[in-house]
Amino acid sequence: MSSLYSPDTPHANAAELAAFDALFAASSAIGATANGGLHRLAASAEDGAMRDLFSRWLSEHGFEVQVDAVGNLFGLVTLAPGKPYLLCGSHLDTQPNAGRFDGIYGVLAGAVAVASVARQLRERGLTPAFNLAVVNWTNEEGARFQPSLIGSSVFMGSLPLEQALACRDGAGVSLGEALAAIGYRGEARAPLPLAGYAELHVEQGATLEQQALAIGVVRSTWAALKWRVRFDGEQNHTGPAPMAVRRDALLAAAHAIVAVRAEAARHGLKLHSSVGRLEVEPNSPNVVPALARMLVEYRSPSTALLAEAGERLRATLAEIATATQTTFEIESEQLREPSELHHGLSELALATCAELGLAASNSVTVAGHDAISLNRRYPTTLLFVPSRNGLSHNEAEFTASADLHRGLHLLTALLFRAATAPGQYLPGADHAH
Amino acid sequence: MSSLYSPDTPHANAAELAAFDALFAASSAIGATANGGLHRLAASAEDGAMRDLFSRWLSEHGFEVQVDAVGNLFGLVTLAPGKPYLLCGSHLDTQPNAGRFDGIYGVLAGAVAVASVARQLRERGLTPAFNLAVVNWTNEEGARFQPSLIGSSVFMGSLPLEQALACRDGAGVSLGEALAAIGYRGEARAPLPLAGYAELHVEQGATLEQQALAIGVVRSTWAALKWRVRFDGEQNHTGPAPMAVRRDALLAAAHAIVAVRAEAARHGLKLHSSVGRLEVEPNSPNVVPALARMLVEYRSPSTALLAEAGERLRATLAEIATATQTTFEIESEQLREPSELHHGLSELALATCAELGLAASNSVTVAGHDAISLNRRYPTTLLFVPSRNGLSHNEAEFTASADLHRGLHLLTALLFRAATAPGQYLPGADHAH
Repeated sequence: MSSLYSPDTPHANAAELAAFDALFAASSAIGATANGGLHRLAASAEDGAMRDLFSRWLSEHGFEVQVDAVGNLFGLVTLAPGKPYLLCGSHLDTQPNAGRFDGIYGVLAGAVAVASVARQLRERGLTPAFNLAVVNWTNEEGARFQPSLIGSSVFMGSLPLEQALACRDGAGVSLGEALAAIGYRGEARAPLPLAGYAELHVEQGATLEQQALAIGVVRSTWAALKWRVRFDGEQNHTGPAPMAVRRDALLAAAHAIVAVRAEAARHGLKLHSSVGRLEVEPNSPNVVPALARMLVEYRSPSTALLAEAGERLRATLAEIATATQTTFEIESEQLREPSELHHGLSELALATCAELGLAASNSVTVAGHDAISLNRRYPTTLLFVPSRNGLSHNEAEFTASADLHRGLHLLTALLFRAATAPGQYLPGADHAH
Repeated sequence: MSSLYSPDTPHANAAELAAFDALFAASSAIGATANGGLHRLAASAEDGAMRDLFSRWLSEHGFEVQVDAVGNLFGLVTLAPGKPYLLCGSHLDTQPNAGRFDGIYGVLAGAVAVASVARQLRERGLTPAFNLAVVNWTNEEGARFQPSLIGSSVFMGSLPLEQALACRDGAGVSLGEALAAIGYRGEARAPLPLAGYAELHVEQGATLEQQALAIGVVRSTWAALKWRVRFDGEQNHTGPAPMAVRRDALLAAAHAIVAVRAEAARHGLKLHSSVGRLEVEPNSPNVVPALARMLVEYRSPSTALLAEAGERLRATLAEIATATQTTFEIESEQLREPSELHHGLSELALATCAELGLAASNSVTVAGHDAISLNRRYPTTLLFVPSRNGLSHNEAEFTASADLHRGLHLLTALLFRAATAPGQYLPGADHAH
């Protein structure tokens, strides 16, 4: 692959591609499932083993390893002391029985890209305008601990550290305890000063594959509305209790789940909806359920549409509660506003794709990413590579090696350009000298 | 209370009523919940503690304690060696966060009744036609281990012992392992030879309370149809995955839960329906559920109506699967036929109520009971006392002490009459001599 590019074009060399392949293969073995996927929940033993492997790799390749108080794992290459860092990365945790690529690709390609840029700067005798770093954010997925994006939210100051560490999993273990158990509850420190952030990720959609594109440069995000709703009924015997007196919390939740889906049907392609999680108590045969708690989400490019859907859901929940003799409570409401990614960095990414001969286009993300957190304050770019059939959060998630390598070349070249000639993309930065 | 009855009428004396009260109070403290209920799942540590207490009580009161291979705990009083036993009892396990009376009342009142009958036989110098025994059946509730009625089903030979011991709870622990852990996995032995079985229970309905009756003599049972149904969908990301490609197993289950309830609405008072348990996988935020497994039950006096409901459900499940792009499988189907309780023992119970001056009537049970298992082969009677508001499988389940004592008197007198003059009620038995 590397021989495709002229020496003037920054790119990963053959040894670096091989290093990425080896790292990715090693990751795919830690928490591997029988069906070729990964089950590596945040701050689990498997996550600890993966962090150990990644930390060793960073140390062996000249990175300074730092772990912050919420377990975010940084690898720093400081070439311009006193200057801020160009950070790249993503997350090494997965959903239950999920794929090998989501998040992991961005961390491992990020590490190799940083090492490659450092080598090329050295070979060309350049001192960059910024330092370089890679990061593994803690608990991006929100599977074991809610909410999602915990690590990057604490880094950005939008989630208090104490609140993050106090989040508990289904077994009652706090994130703080879980991180301590695997040795990744680090020390409180000032956030790394950043010049910008780049995240490489598999698309989680089929657009690139359908359009035969190598790269999607994300320009904007959908908004998301997430509610946690509970219905309370009354425990009773499922046999003798007359139907007329039953107060069945699961029946109420079932009506609500159907209504949430109907909301999406009402809006065509402009609204996605889901209930991914439902807890039932006591969830026992022969017992009318007393409690049902569910996570409802609506996603749309339009916050107005989300507000409309939310108001209709509020009214529907009340109707369902009345009809089922239950009560309901909206325990939490969270609105993630839509946002635009950084114009300059996105344009640099497109220009770099052109330089590398990679077919690219603008893209949009429906899913949340750590990049969306970072984008609130720092120039941020989010870059997609194709994912077969768009299948995501699934063991069968797949991206071909050639596509992974193209993304790695892009990230390498992008970081090199941003670090050495940032002026037109990152205003206020000095050029390399 | 005991002074109400003439010396000729068998009944529990004041010391025996006090012994019952003390046993019941001790039971109410083992696995007690903050809201005044009990959480004492089958073969749990709490179940073990309760069994220890009960075994000690039996030994101290002259019973021979036997534990069979599935953990059924018998207390034997052998007064007529070689003769079969009149057995009474119920179960000491509970549903999660359930009441203090369900099952427990029948075991503890049964033990006291047997001790009382033995005393009265001794005092009157009678040798009975049958021996006496009390039993605590293992895992009646089917909460921790499915199916319900495991102990009595193994005793009756309708469930193979190996299959029973291999049942696993949600954490993967087998019933055999759990019984061994609490010291109640006994030795295989031939079933105790029985002359008949009597079970005293709280009503789990409000009929007795509404009609101001002390006792309901159950003459028949409703039939029950229980299906375990699973929907399989496809794990995907709840954000970017287009709604049109989603295969959401939880959405399918929600439609099915609504349809199961609609079936009950179609038949007025003749059909009860429920989904008490739903398992979702992976049940994680941001993941379209790949699997939903639910326990559906229909109950009715009419098997024809259950068959009709079952066929309609089968068709509905197929429609739901098509509409949601999921597949479904009926993993198990269980039909419990309706049955008539033993005529002779039921008549004896009514006559004994008349002798004791207890207002009684014929009754029917919708719920399953160990007595229904025993009834397939042995003369069996099932006796209800009132339960406030009919609330069952709920921490607020309540029966007044006076009602509990009335039932204890009845069981004592019934066992005495059946043991000493069984001829007209239990044909073929010798009279006492």
